[in-house]
Amino acid sequence: MTAADAGHAAASASNTNEILVSLLLMFAGAKLFAEIFERLKQPSVVGEILAGVLIGPSVLGWVTPNEITHTLAELGVIFLLFSVGLETKPRSILQVGGTAGMVAVLGVIVPFFAGWAYMHFSGHSNIESLFLGAAMVATSVGITARVLSGMGLLSLISSRIILGAAVIDDILGLLVLAVVSSMAGGAIDYAEIGATAALSIGFVVAVATIGASAMKRATPRIARLRIGHSLFIGAVLLCFGLATVAATIGIAAIIGAFLAGMALAEPTEQEHETHEQVRGITEFFTPFFLVNIGMQLNVDAFANRETIVAALVVTALAVVTKFVGCGLAAIRLGARRAAQIGVGMAPRGEVGIVVAQIGLGMGVISDKVFAVVLFMAVATTMIAPPLLVPLFRNEAKPAPG
Amino acid sequence: MTAADAGHAAASASNTNEILVSLLLMFAGAKLFAEIFERLKQPSVVGEILAGVLIGPSVLGWVTPNEITHTLAELGVIFLLFSVGLETKPRSILQVGGTAGMVAVLGVIVPFFAGWAYMHFSGHSNIESLFLGAAMVATSVGITARVLSGMGLLSLISSRIILGAAVIDDILGLLVLAVVSSMAGGAIDYAEIGATAALSIGFVVAVATIGASAMKRATPRIARLRIGHSLFIGAVLLCFGLATVAATIGIAAIIGAFLAGMALAEPTEQEHETHEQVRGITEFFTPFFLVNIGMQLNVDAFANRETIVAALVVTALAVVTKFVGCGLAAIRLGARRAAQIGVGMAPRGEVGIVVAQIGLGMGVISDKVFAVVLFMAVATTMIAPPLLVPLFRNEAKPAPG
Repeated sequence: MTAADAGHAAASASNTNEILVSLLLMFAGAKLFAEIFERLKQPSVVGEILAGVLIGPSVLGWVTPNEITHTLAELGVIFLLFSVGLETKPRSILQVGGTAGMVAVLGVIVPFFAGWAYMHFSGHSNIESLFLGAAMVATSVGITARVLSGMGLLSLISSRIILGAAVIDDILGLLVLAVVSSMAGGAIDYAEIGATAALSIGFVVAVATIGASAMKRATPRIARLRIGHSLFIGAVLLCFGLATVAATIGIAAIIGAFLAGMALAEPTEQEHETHEQVRGITEFFTPFFLVNIGMQLNVDAFANRETIVAALVVTALAVVTKFVGCGLAAIRLGARRAAQIGVGMAPRGEVGIVVAQIGLGMGVISDKVFAVVLFMAVATTMIAPPLLVPLFRNEAKPAPG
Repeated sequence: MTAADAGHAAASASNTNEILVSLLLMFAGAKLFAEIFERLKQPSVVGEILAGVLIGPSVLGWVTPNEITHTLAELGVIFLLFSVGLETKPRSILQVGGTAGMVAVLGVIVPFFAGWAYMHFSGHSNIESLFLGAAMVATSVGITARVLSGMGLLSLISSRIILGAAVIDDILGLLVLAVVSSMAGGAIDYAEIGATAALSIGFVVAVATIGASAMKRATPRIARLRIGHSLFIGAVLLCFGLATVAATIGIAAIIGAFLAGMALAEPTEQEHETHEQVRGITEFFTPFFLVNIGMQLNVDAFANRETIVAALVVTALAVVTKFVGCGLAAIRLGARRAAQIGVGMAPRGEVGIVVAQIGLGMGVISDKVFAVVLFMAVATTMIAPPLLVPLFRNEAKPAPG
């Protein structure tokens, strides 16, 4: 043990208490605001994000986002999508694949060009404009999934289209980002982008089509293992494993987690016990995901009028373009379902932030544009749920299965 | 957002994948070795600790302990003790309070003096000898609790005495540490130590005596809250809250978590669902606790013969002195139960390491002595389970409730 290690270890020991206090504040704050919002008949997810805005650096400064809160948030959205996957049979997504593909494609093209055009015509460089467009592309499906799952409406046709479209949308977002990043770096590497496309599409198609039957065959073997709760352990490992593969390919870890859930969605003997245990982890981690979104907001960046206007315009564009693009793609299902899908795809959350971080890291977008993306990402997650709830109210709960 | 924040954020984004891989390695490694050890009819906890030794810096170096693994480990032992508390009615501990108190007192005095004497007579300074004694005091009850819980034997009289003694032992350990630290700092502050003693004893007695009835009254109200899974959320908040209070007072966070579990041990209507959800979190986090213990070991420190001998002697003393001290205190229950208790109190785990870290931070113990304590802490957790299993085998499973 070196002196530096020892110092680190001692610091960790004395930090334990501070970390516990932070986690307690995040969890308790989230649940307090969830309860208040439920009583006001508002979506609890918005309350939990607002709790993050309040306890984060913007307002009270009680908790500063750090690697630990970031990791718990990431685990939160991973287990959230895993839980949603557990309630989603692969067949139910494949059935709506065509519409979901259309929703994803139009939901990428319209926001991308709108974002680029707004920035371009307000005098930003072409590459900065392209990055803002790319940051407006990818939907963060966690928020919508949480709302629909809470209402027990995950198996509605619009919910299934949203989930399917979010997966395709994430792959398209990765490709847009790859193109834009390589343009910023110099020339476009078509071979590498083609390989990324093939790898990500191959992964998703392979797991979606053969995952469920593979897990059906594996389940009796896993059930026979000597370790306790082996089905639960196996489920967690599959979720973690596919999330890690997805992240390694470059698509979001949550896509892997969602596919892992779908692969286990067919009922098994000990289904109930395992699902309750997964629900325990999900309910524990999800508040950290929601609070962490709110904590990203930094109001200090909005000291001047210009940035405020840009943030509001970009947020409005982000909502309207997804609504129009995704809604149009689903218009043959009727206006109500088109609207449900258009609003459900609006939240950008952590995905837009990651794109902007990469642009910032490459030095092609300014701190101000980064602040604008942060605002747009947080604001779209808070705007969507209050619109979703009335749009989905009075939907008959679909029959189980 | 400052440039440093942005840099940190970008670094976090690119680290996500690396962190996911680390967590996957820890979880998968733990469960692989648990399965292997189960098949060899050895305790799975030892396999999980060994997985940590292997993937940690000592052998393969795949995962380096850091703040994130430390936090997950801490959450692991907190939820482990919370789960154990859920299976432990306060009455069942209070009934054996006298014996548990004796076990704790002798289990503190004998190792403390043995540790001090060994160091003193092998030529170390008085204060370094006192710190080693202090590091040998506190039992880390997580390992024993995990083994007994896995065997379904938590309500045996010896199990209950071990749990009660571990709580008292932790308070005594805190006081020994307070005395030794203040001696290292100059003079003993009797007033402050008295206040610490009063506060920690008051906290434990208050929660143990009135916690259960307070929670019984609060449960119907919590069940009526609007947020989903409110009983589970309430349980997690109580666990987190009391763990944080305990850590703030200075006793181990796990004591607070254990007391929180006990306060909720009386059956409620939705008990089963909530308990399954808590089991989910516990089974998810516990492997990180066990792997993290193994990862603490640093074989590099044992390059010379002198340190190896010291590590082996201190480990032997640690096991024998708890066995003799705690066993003697419980001898009127018969040799078998005395042996069960003496072995069950042997693991030192993270508690001894924290004491040594404080000594290192104060500059009163050397890197070598720190390495010896680390070895003793890890080795005692690996020695106890294989001895516990045969000692508890053939015990009739107590009737539920």
